[in-house]
Amino acid sequence: MTVQRAHRAAPEHVHPDDVPLLTALGALADPVRLQLVRELAGSQDWERSCGSFDVPVGKAALSHHFAALRAAGLVEQRDIGPKRFNRLRRAEFDARFPGLLTLVLRP
Amino acid sequence: MTVQRAHRAAPEHVHPDDVPLLTALGALADPVRLQLVRELAGSQDWERSCGSFDVPVGKAALSHHFAALRAAGLVEQRDIGPKRFNRLRRAEFDARFPGLLTLVLRP
Repeated sequence: MTVQRAHRAAPEHVHPDDVPLLTALGALADPVRLQLVRELAGSQDWERSCGSFDVPVGKAALSHHFAALRAAGLVEQRDIGPKRFNRLRRAEFDARFPGLLTLVLRP
Repeated sequence: MTVQRAHRAAPEHVHPDDVPLLTALGALADPVRLQLVRELAGSQDWERSCGSFDVPVGKAALSHHFAALRAAGLVEQRDIGPKRFNRLRRAEFDARFPGLLTLVLRP
């Protein structure tokens, strides 16, 4: 019997309070992830699907980058139909690492 | 003819003003380099030689880590006799990346 799965597994999140400093720095020390964070910061919560970012990487690499952002407490994701939508966890991340987002979001 | 070099080449430095954000984040996103920075922050300028840090890496790796810290504008070095001494470029780095050192030096 084949069980049809309409959706992939829901994304696993880590709250910023549980993120080590090295994980946060490592997540931000990458040009693609920095671009994702900056674009998310310029968008409304849940406005952007993963496919809406114009980054120079393939789908598997992009999925890896979003996993790193979730593990660093930077991004929360929700599956709605076939798409996965994102929000930047700005307030929570800022409470855990004061000033870090401000610094990386400077023009 | 063999020319004897009494000293290795002087270390090359990059001023924090010329350091990209990604370079700074990448330099700090490493446990050994984070320990070096934290120990330097707790020492006087030029007090610590490279060999004085109790880090779990060999000499070549340690040299690589110090090169990464110089390239990120975090450390200035001076050769005195056979030893290389260090200082954290705290004020200059803080002017370039406000709050970042404060964040990584939190207990």
